[in-house]
Amino acid sequence: MQLQSYAAGQWRSGEGGETVRHAITGEAVATISSKGVDFAAMLDYGRKVGGPALRKLTFHERALMLKALAQYLAERKEKYYELSKATGATRADSWVDIEGGIATLFAFSSKGRKELPNASFIIDGNPEFVSRNGTFVGQHIRTPLQGVAVHINAYNFPCWGMLEKLSVNLLAGVPAIVKPASQTAYLTELMFRDMIESKIFPEGALQLICGSVGDLFEHLQSQDVVTFTGSASTGRKLKSHPVILRNSVRFTMEADSLNFSMLGPDAKSETPEFEIFIKEVARELTSKAGQKCTCIRRVFVPKALIEPVVEALGKRLSKVVVGDPSVEGVTMGALASLSQRDEVRARVKELQQGAEIVYGDLENFSVTGGDIATGAFLAPILLRCCEPKKHTVVHEVEAFGPVATLMPYETAEDAIDLARRGEGSLVGSLVTYDNDFAREVVLGAAAYHGRLLVLNRDSAKESTGHGSPLPVLVHGGPGRAGGGEEMGGVRGVMHYLQRTALQGSPETLSRITDRWISGANRREGVHPFRKNLDELQLGDCVKTGSHKVTLEEIEHFAHFTGDTFYAHMDEAAAKANPFFGGRVAHGYYIVSIAAGLFVEPNPGPVLANYGVDNLRFLTPVFPGDELKVVLTCKQKNPRITENYGEVRWDAVVTNQDDKVVAQYDVLTMVEKAPKVESA
Amino acid sequence: MQLQSYAAGQWRSGEGGETVRHAITGEAVATISSKGVDFAAMLDYGRKVGGPALRKLTFHERALMLKALAQYLAERKEKYYELSKATGATRADSWVDIEGGIATLFAFSSKGRKELPNASFIIDGNPEFVSRNGTFVGQHIRTPLQGVAVHINAYNFPCWGMLEKLSVNLLAGVPAIVKPASQTAYLTELMFRDMIESKIFPEGALQLICGSVGDLFEHLQSQDVVTFTGSASTGRKLKSHPVILRNSVRFTMEADSLNFSMLGPDAKSETPEFEIFIKEVARELTSKAGQKCTCIRRVFVPKALIEPVVEALGKRLSKVVVGDPSVEGVTMGALASLSQRDEVRARVKELQQGAEIVYGDLENFSVTGGDIATGAFLAPILLRCCEPKKHTVVHEVEAFGPVATLMPYETAEDAIDLARRGEGSLVGSLVTYDNDFAREVVLGAAAYHGRLLVLNRDSAKESTGHGSPLPVLVHGGPGRAGGGEEMGGVRGVMHYLQRTALQGSPETLSRITDRWISGANRREGVHPFRKNLDELQLGDCVKTGSHKVTLEEIEHFAHFTGDTFYAHMDEAAAKANPFFGGRVAHGYYIVSIAAGLFVEPNPGPVLANYGVDNLRFLTPVFPGDELKVVLTCKQKNPRITENYGEVRWDAVVTNQDDKVVAQYDVLTMVEKAPKVESA
Repeated sequence: MQLQSYAAGQWRSGEGGETVRHAITGEAVATISSKGVDFAAMLDYGRKVGGPALRKLTFHERALMLKALAQYLAERKEKYYELSKATGATRADSWVDIEGGIATLFAFSSKGRKELPNASFIIDGNPEFVSRNGTFVGQHIRTPLQGVAVHINAYNFPCWGMLEKLSVNLLAGVPAIVKPASQTAYLTELMFRDMIESKIFPEGALQLICGSVGDLFEHLQSQDVVTFTGSASTGRKLKSHPVILRNSVRFTMEADSLNFSMLGPDAKSETPEFEIFIKEVARELTSKAGQKCTCIRRVFVPKALIEPVVEALGKRLSKVVVGDPSVEGVTMGALASLSQRDEVRARVKELQQGAEIVYGDLENFSVTGGDIATGAFLAPILLRCCEPKKHTVVHEVEAFGPVATLMPYETAEDAIDLARRGEGSLVGSLVTYDNDFAREVVLGAAAYHGRLLVLNRDSAKESTGHGSPLPVLVHGGPGRAGGGEEMGGVRGVMHYLQRTALQGSPETLSRITDRWISGANRREGVHPFRKNLDELQLGDCVKTGSHKVTLEEIEHFAHFTGDTFYAHMDEAAAKANPFFGGRVAHGYYIVSIAAGLFVEPNPGPVLANYGVDNLRFLTPVFPGDELKVVLTCKQKNPRITENYGEVRWDAVVTNQDDKVVAQYDVLTMVEKAPKVESA
Repeated sequence: MQLQSYAAGQWRSGEGGETVRHAITGEAVATISSKGVDFAAMLDYGRKVGGPALRKLTFHERALMLKALAQYLAERKEKYYELSKATGATRADSWVDIEGGIATLFAFSSKGRKELPNASFIIDGNPEFVSRNGTFVGQHIRTPLQGVAVHINAYNFPCWGMLEKLSVNLLAGVPAIVKPASQTAYLTELMFRDMIESKIFPEGALQLICGSVGDLFEHLQSQDVVTFTGSASTGRKLKSHPVILRNSVRFTMEADSLNFSMLGPDAKSETPEFEIFIKEVARELTSKAGQKCTCIRRVFVPKALIEPVVEALGKRLSKVVVGDPSVEGVTMGALASLSQRDEVRARVKELQQGAEIVYGDLENFSVTGGDIATGAFLAPILLRCCEPKKHTVVHEVEAFGPVATLMPYETAEDAIDLARRGEGSLVGSLVTYDNDFAREVVLGAAAYHGRLLVLNRDSAKESTGHGSPLPVLVHGGPGRAGGGEEMGGVRGVMHYLQRTALQGSPETLSRITDRWISGANRREGVHPFRKNLDELQLGDCVKTGSHKVTLEEIEHFAHFTGDTFYAHMDEAAAKANPFFGGRVAHGYYIVSIAAGLFVEPNPGPVLANYGVDNLRFLTPVFPGDELKVVLTCKQKNPRITENYGEVRWDAVVTNQDDKVVAQYDVLTMVEKAPKVESA
């Protein structure tokens, strides 16, 4: 099978190419080459066809497409499982790659609709009122980059690696070119074909390179983004490409790192935490045959517990069955290729400069249903380094397979020091039931890690594990881990948007950002509660009459609600309060009276008040004060799938001296215009 | 005068060194060299002495130090003005540098206390409830990097350039090494001496290199940050340093860019906007003699208005008096050095490949009170390029002096296209009274710009101008502008913090982050309103009795408050509403009754309810329902300068079926423990 690239709307076979082999049998699976593909044209196509089409859509529209795509792929998942066997993966390994990838699409679809507006750009933060009279204000926005995302992916997750990155750039409104690692590109290509056939995303949004990227980097521009997952050495080379530097191309790198797992000093042999720790380390060592960038490489154990840990881990690992995953009973498959196995063996030999193997053997181990000569099998290897502050090799060399090194520590400070010696990792974990110890280690080591997991008897059952990046949490780490950040819910979307500070009059910025800003024009007229979502305009407002506050009302409200706080009831005690200087009205009284002033009582397009945001009481309200309200339409968020949408109102309650008494956002659901039935 | 470096707690003179000359007289001002300085020791000192001392403080404590520093420097400002004359700056130019820098310290002090917690790390976003039973949750935090910020600054703002960067890293809790450009380092050194003498920031927080950075880059580690402001070519060289790449050192670059200013098609000769535009362009051309990275380099004008603009600009520029700023009447000083002037002349000659000079002369112009042979004087130069899509040189070559190029455009699309041709700029401005045109241009060009300013008759009077970065807005831009981001209020602080995803049980994460998370332990006992800020613990709660809702109460509340919305009053109409299915209680009734249930009425440490956040009504409340509340202490923020602090309470109102009816945060002010008088 010759793998194809999908370039500028066409499937193209490269010329010639290298042969990719089955991880278990060694048989040829595919040939791969991108020779003859016009990379400059691909970038151009993404920028001119895919980008504009995506940018016409809103975040919610694109989020719904992610969901449709997830459903489309989920219906076809069994064929991906079938082909995934060639990568050496067990069914459980493939589940992470295939269904984990699809779940990521679902997760971003959901986050996108919950946490992003149904709009084509994002408002970033509140207006900055930088001028004395408020005629000149600032407001940040984030708009989609107008270039192409180029994803250079690793071989270990041919599906998830593609989907976790695409979820984010597609949601952001930026087209992508996916370049899978050759070793497992056949699986990526299979799934990608379905994505194109689904026609869910607009043409130009998705392109694929099977083979090398050729001269693509020469054509990158300032609005493009490159993400790289793989070895640090390749990543550094790409990152320092002259075009990347010259055009300040955003470059995100996610490299392997020397992730740690730590046993707390409280977690002695008989504790639930000890058992949790042994399970977690053993699982991470063997799942995906240790070929995950998040695998545990360094295992920190209280000095006194080293021996029990070696024993318990050895016992657990002795149950691992290495072999062909299609054979019943096999629990750990092969590495991705023979050359990968050679690489791991070489790295273990380097580690042996500072550590000794305490479990496993690089050469002699049994294989079930496979041949060690043609399949890239390797059994789990556990090393121990007794002086981890002396032997720097254990903090610097990574064997990308089922390999980890145990090291002792004495104090919490010691343990933090070891953690930091990784000089930047994707993830660290900590198994302890001592939350003070957890706090100390986490706050001491957090700056060196993208993710930190604390496990104990309360959380272990529902834990997703040390090795699993989640769509809602950031994935990436500083230093050795590459310095990048992926996913993290809507945080990930921000990497594909440009933040811009806008300055101008409140009216101008309201018109540009579709959010009314204090100081922008207001329009009175028909009560805005009588307007449907389509009729309603930002700045539509109601200025109410006034309501006189009396001591009787305050007392009545207190008794009616039961809120007889002294500041409302006892003049002497209220006077002694540093904020009031006398009996005051309840905050809840103020907002209740305000609603009475601004509400239009009859049935109309405003369906419900579903909440209030950012309510602040700014001036005390005393008996005799006269309250009035200005309620202004601030922001509309029509839903795609409903016949209503959210409307946010700016509410300002003032007293007889025009001092602001309370300020808040009122949140309502408002109906769209009635649909005109077609004849 | 031999300038000194401040390294590892000592002032050190370098050996030998180059001579820095007065911009107006050409006389020697100082010699500068860092030869003999131990750069590795400086980094080490920052990491081991400055960093730990800063990280012991909270954001508020560091913010108060920024304020103290600003006051200290403001008292000494006249000596900075005096020395600033040697840079060729007018008093107005120096004001931007000196008082603009000090104002930035004040601004970050204020933002830090308003928008960051009084804590040593930041909670980033809400908990992520990723497990079914809620025993395993996620939460992002941001902690200070444990390295050193190395600031490599440009010659044009020796004070502001230092302070705008320091404000942010100091607020974040990261020490810095400042390396000013040699040409104007004498002024930086003068101010820096005062900063050290003030002893406001802890030892090790601030170091200075006068001269080259020597082998400093060889010693950078993964927790360090480099910021660079200056020429793109130097920036690229530093950014690709092998150590920067190997250790994924964060590198922020802010380079000059070909910023634009655009006149709207509506802004014809007689309009206020035409006049505003002419003023703005002329001012940006001459202030700081055009040596600002934010200067207007490309001027886009509707084709029909080109001639009137040339005429009006020429008229205005003819009033500029070039010369020695200490002479009365001089409005524009000199460039920083003779070599800088040679550089600008050479760039103008390049621009002449695609444009012609329509105002000014590179060689012949009058100088008041200065000598063109010894002082780096240059008069304003205006070029015109008639075919800006043909001559790419006008979008690529920057003359860093009083130089700009006029270009015509025909349509909005045209104008956006020209803006984008800068391939990334710090700032663009737009003078128009047509908000539709403004919206189109801004949304079309935003991805290419760090800041966009819209001026019109409403905003011009209070505008801070095209060329002024503000502390509360981001400064930086994509592509040619370097791809960096500085300031932006607390956004800037984030560049010095590492984001880490935490995972664990709600209790563990609450203990680590000092914010109670739903699912963490709660403790009943003494009513928490009876505890002062020091006694109060996260998780302290009150579980109230219940309150039965009646139709009479709903009606009474409606009449009392005036809120007679049909959903409360009219069964038939309420039934027709898609959310309710019958008459329901008011949202404000629910929160009022809830307060009645949870409030402890007697005087005590809880002083006031100052607001409510994130209130959501989740289930309708019907007559007959029984409401109860759990109020839990969620977060404490003791103020440094007051004897009270903010306490955030988690409020959950449920009905008789334990369904959540409303959820929100109640915000209160709570007294600290009474101070014990010393005997």
